[in-house]
Amino acid sequence: MMFEFELIHQSKKSKARVGRIHTPNGSFMTPAFVAVGTNGTLKSVDHVQISDLNLPLVFANTYHLLLHPGPEVVQKAGGLHQFSGRKGPIITDSGGFQVFSLAYGSVADEIKGKGRKKHGNSVLKINEEGVIFRSYRDGSAVHLTPESTVNVQKKLGADIIIPLDELPPYHMGERALVKALERTHRWEKRSLDTHLANPKNQAMYAVCHGGLSKELREKSARYLDSLPFNGFGIGGSLGKNTEDLCRVLDYTVGFLSPDRPRHLLGIGDTPSIDATVSYGIDTFDSSYPTKAARHAVALTANGPVRLRQTAHRESFVPIEKGCPCYTCKHYTRSWLHHLFKAHEASAHTLTTIHNLSYMMRHMNTIQQHILEDRI
Amino acid sequence: MMFEFELIHQSKKSKARVGRIHTPNGSFMTPAFVAVGTNGTLKSVDHVQISDLNLPLVFANTYHLLLHPGPEVVQKAGGLHQFSGRKGPIITDSGGFQVFSLAYGSVADEIKGKGRKKHGNSVLKINEEGVIFRSYRDGSAVHLTPESTVNVQKKLGADIIIPLDELPPYHMGERALVKALERTHRWEKRSLDTHLANPKNQAMYAVCHGGLSKELREKSARYLDSLPFNGFGIGGSLGKNTEDLCRVLDYTVGFLSPDRPRHLLGIGDTPSIDATVSYGIDTFDSSYPTKAARHAVALTANGPVRLRQTAHRESFVPIEKGCPCYTCKHYTRSWLHHLFKAHEASAHTLTTIHNLSYMMRHMNTIQQHILEDRI
Repeated sequence: MMFEFELIHQSKKSKARVGRIHTPNGSFMTPAFVAVGTNGTLKSVDHVQISDLNLPLVFANTYHLLLHPGPEVVQKAGGLHQFSGRKGPIITDSGGFQVFSLAYGSVADEIKGKGRKKHGNSVLKINEEGVIFRSYRDGSAVHLTPESTVNVQKKLGADIIIPLDELPPYHMGERALVKALERTHRWEKRSLDTHLANPKNQAMYAVCHGGLSKELREKSARYLDSLPFNGFGIGGSLGKNTEDLCRVLDYTVGFLSPDRPRHLLGIGDTPSIDATVSYGIDTFDSSYPTKAARHAVALTANGPVRLRQTAHRESFVPIEKGCPCYTCKHYTRSWLHHLFKAHEASAHTLTTIHNLSYMMRHMNTIQQHILEDRI
Repeated sequence: MMFEFELIHQSKKSKARVGRIHTPNGSFMTPAFVAVGTNGTLKSVDHVQISDLNLPLVFANTYHLLLHPGPEVVQKAGGLHQFSGRKGPIITDSGGFQVFSLAYGSVADEIKGKGRKKHGNSVLKINEEGVIFRSYRDGSAVHLTPESTVNVQKKLGADIIIPLDELPPYHMGERALVKALERTHRWEKRSLDTHLANPKNQAMYAVCHGGLSKELREKSARYLDSLPFNGFGIGGSLGKNTEDLCRVLDYTVGFLSPDRPRHLLGIGDTPSIDATVSYGIDTFDSSYPTKAARHAVALTANGPVRLRQTAHRESFVPIEKGCPCYTCKHYTRSWLHHLFKAHEASAHTLTTIHNLSYMMRHMNTIQQHILEDRI
């Protein structure tokens, strides 16, 4: 099956909607949470182990896979699905986000709320052609262009791919922002042309930019909507808080045709999902639930449970009452508390499984509420 | 079902034998490999996940569980099986080995081939009563006596428990060795009496000592064989190499009644198993297969496969052809190579599963060879 977005229900109360995305590797309902599997795997679990969670879509990072094991190895393995054991849909990004995070370090960190990067500034050149950066693995110079990212993503073979964009720093002035936006549009068009010359059953999402400017957001959305992309990522600077984010979505979504899905790039914690789903966002990716798990934070409908706390030492109940996940079925908070205190890696695995299960249930609830026009 | 050792076949060619050990939590064939789960869990996997491997027996360490989460927590959880999700038989040791390793540091390291300990000398006192050591967790003084270890192991609730012994340093002189042996015998008798006053469906194995001395090994074996232990551990100094080890077994096993099982303490790599099974050893415990897995070494019938090596970059085959394990069924060497290179924890998990599966198959083969009188 080719890529297709099926609109199931448009809420009467907001722009929120329920849909179904079809891909060559399976279909899933939206709004959906997209787990991040940077190196082709989610951290601390393997794809087969979590297959019963039916994760709708997994987000893998082209930057990391480009450096290891390299697209040729993945291609020879039969593509990312075959290589990694992931049976459902996969999306890859362009690699640009990581490279520009290296270039603009602290600003990208500010945008994404990340800590300081370890690798220093290893970006050698940025020009109209693309970016040249230094591999942190072997020091070699790596070219990333609108064409090369598509060629790499063709080899990786994800269901959804993303064109090259420039991630402008948050504090960039208006004039520079306009220039960056124009270049991003040229780059996205070049990526799209490369893709369309050899679509290979893959879909491509544009990345809408424009920072916090109403005018530029509209301009970007209108331009990208005029091109035959299969869906839209909403990226670029999304501001510093939920208020900024909602404003950006308000400036953007109205100019995107409703028959194509919208993905919010890099944001997928439950408060942000809850705050933005009414703007008509269909998919959200975030490493938050898996990262929280490795920090002993289990997500539940009653808020986070911090499993290292002494309160859980003799808590012989599952993380969340009624949760159908493997972890809640077989283990107690007390056991998980012990595993975390004893530095056992299975603590990460078991809490990751629960947190993913929680996200699936949370999104199901959101879908239900939209179907009932309550959102 | 109570503890029972059933002798199935005595080889005509050597002292090797095939048997079946019955415990309240299940039965298993011997000779068997016993995986080490120090904190109650095997490292990088959880018990439910590996239940299809049917691990015969898992070895948990009282020293670690005493310090965290403490025997009271485990008891309140319903015992180690209930707490950890392990459905099959469990054996716990006395805690003495770790404490004496702290006391005699480098010598115990020499015996066991371990690296230098991190905790320094935290043993406060050793006398006839027992040992006092400092908890590395909270600095408190912990008493370990022949009675207290049994009380702790009653709370943990393993199927097989072990009396307190003293682990004499390898280079101890003859006279000191005799004194240590006599004290170990007094301690083991005190542990046994404590156990028999409240057996609780648990079995207790003695620990045979005597270092490399033929005379002391015979003395220890004869004395312990005269007591109503359910089986025998072979411990104390086992020498520096396989030759020493075989000599110790030769000095020991002949004096142990054949109707009780014999466990070789802390040794269970395949070369050592292969070299000693003909001495009539029934079970072997070792962290080798699980530790090797975390160092990217996969065990196979054709020798170890070092998964980090570049040779496996494009090796799109399972770790071992024909291996029925989860890892070999779903993943390739190439994928595992990538996971190790990308520092993904699932590499440890997947390789651990394979290595355990390999050990099960290896022991099956040994059992078969003994049944055919080929060993």
